[in-house]
Amino acid sequence: MGASKKNPQSGNYLYNPALLQNLDWESVRGYLNPFITNENPGEPWLLVRPLQLEDYDKGLLQILSQLTTVGNIPRSAFERQFWEMMKAGGYYVTVIEDTRDRKIIGAATLITEYKFIHDCGLRGRLEDVVVNNTYRGKQLGKLIVLTVSLLAKKLGCYKMSLDCKDPLIPFYKGIGYKIEPGNSNSMIIRYETPTASGGPS
Amino acid sequence: MGASKKNPQSGNYLYNPALLQNLDWESVRGYLNPFITNENPGEPWLLVRPLQLEDYDKGLLQILSQLTTVGNIPRSAFERQFWEMMKAGGYYVTVIEDTRDRKIIGAATLITEYKFIHDCGLRGRLEDVVVNNTYRGKQLGKLIVLTVSLLAKKLGCYKMSLDCKDPLIPFYKGIGYKIEPGNSNSMIIRYETPTASGGPS
Ligand SMILES: CC(C)(COP(=O)(O)OP(=O)(O)OC[C@H]1O[C@@H](n2cnc3c(N)ncnc32)[C@H](O)[C@@H]1OP(=O)(O)O)[C@@H](O)C(=O)NCCC(=O)NCCS
Ligand SMILES: CC(C)(COP(=O)(O)OP(=O)(O)OC[C@H]1O[C@@H](n2cnc3c(N)ncnc32)[C@H](O)[C@@H]1OP(=O)(O)O)[C@@H](O)C(=O)NCCC(=O)NCCS
Repeated sequence: MGASKKNPQSGNYLYNPALLQNLDWESVRGYLNPFITNENPGEPWLLVRPLQLEDYDKGLLQILSQLTTVGNIPRSAFERQFWEMMKAGGYYVTVIEDTRDRKIIGAATLITEYKFIHDCGLRGRLEDVVVNNTYRGKQLGKLIVLTVSLLAKKLGCYKMSLDCKDPLIPFYKGIGYKIEPGNSNSMIIRYETPTASGGPS
Repeated sequence: MGASKKNPQSGNYLYNPALLQNLDWESVRGYLNPFITNENPGEPWLLVRPLQLEDYDKGLLQILSQLTTVGNIPRSAFERQFWEMMKAGGYYVTVIEDTRDRKIIGAATLITEYKFIHDCGLRGRLEDVVVNNTYRGKQLGKLIVLTVSLLAKKLGCYKMSLDCKDPLIPFYKGIGYKIEPGNSNSMIIRYETPTASGGPS
């Protein structure tokens, strides 16, 4: 495990940080100006890394609440979910930390899914993308999404997909995501869930 | 584990078949005419159950090839993927078998995903839906999709989602799935994968 100098207490990563080394940034250079990468994110105090158990104290849930409803999650529930994700595997929750004040300022998740189709292929999904509102417009959204997208490529995914609202289409088009004509519908059913912990109803 | 009389060799289920008991079919009665359920699928020779390791010999991959590219998957690769899914958890591959000739004639998958958002919620996804072409038009598509959708509800998912092509929208609308205006876009990036087994590139 590559313990970063910026982040000496390197325990409890959700996934191996070495996976974030040597991503294929050359393939997406055209989307970034100036060119930044997860290993050189433009400012010396920014750190792109896997989620850590300690991120409960670094404001992860606060920035997710800029995306959607989060709820009042006690530390024990956060930790339980962290370990469930680690045990299952395939959860690549990735964050940007501002190491000056030890705050999470961006996050995106890659989930991988085993398939039988496509030669027992691996599919990637992009989930829960957010950049803290005071940090927007500086390419950090592109940076975190491209980081997990390139990780999907490195892991051998045949496809990476996401669902989004209409106003976000230009953002994702600007980094290589496409709407396939006639094949881009996302449909849902919402269920009422009984309790905060989302147990069986 | 509920060993069915129709299927006495009940080993090696991908997930516990008891989870398919007592699904909330009353809530979807209006979508089915005549009314059928996974426990009473209309014909005595039809069996709705979790995927089994033995389904490699019952034509699972052949019917998936009516949906998309499957490739020439050796038994060893199928079994490896089966065990990976079981180990990870959250993979509810569900099939309809015609027990007269022991052939898989329909399939659909529920995948559940742990979240931090929505009170550490659980999200469901519908994947890889197919009914053998000689069995279409008999409500078996509805049956298998509703089965895994009601399973998602039973497991406590706050939402079930799917991506589909335009011509399938009426099929899914007919069983309760909705397009949320302004929030129903699916976008993708496709990657070249090096080998049949989809290993890291
Ligand atoms: C979407 C989000 C992550 C973008 O983060 P960001 O750091 O501001 O994005 P960037 O600076 O990398 O912007 C990249 C480009 O996308 C555009 N863009 C960014 N956010 C946009 C938005 N909400 N609508 C339209 N375009 C947007 C920018 O103008 C920029 O374009 P340019 O390269 O032509 O100048 C951020 O706005 C956010 O967290 N929003 C709230 C949560 C959310 O909606 N998440 C996505 C759910 S699908
Ligand atoms: C989609 C599929 C699973 C439906 O299976 P099925 O057993 O024929 O469906 P049902 O008999 O339950 O049909 C239910 C309703 O949907 C309609 N429907 C079914 N397939 C449809 C299609 N391809 N296009 C439009 N409507 C369709 C039926 O007409 C029926 O309508 P009704 O209740 O008003 O009579 C089947 O056609 C299939 O396997 N297709 C190929 C694979 C595929 O496209 N999968 C979906 C990927 S998103």
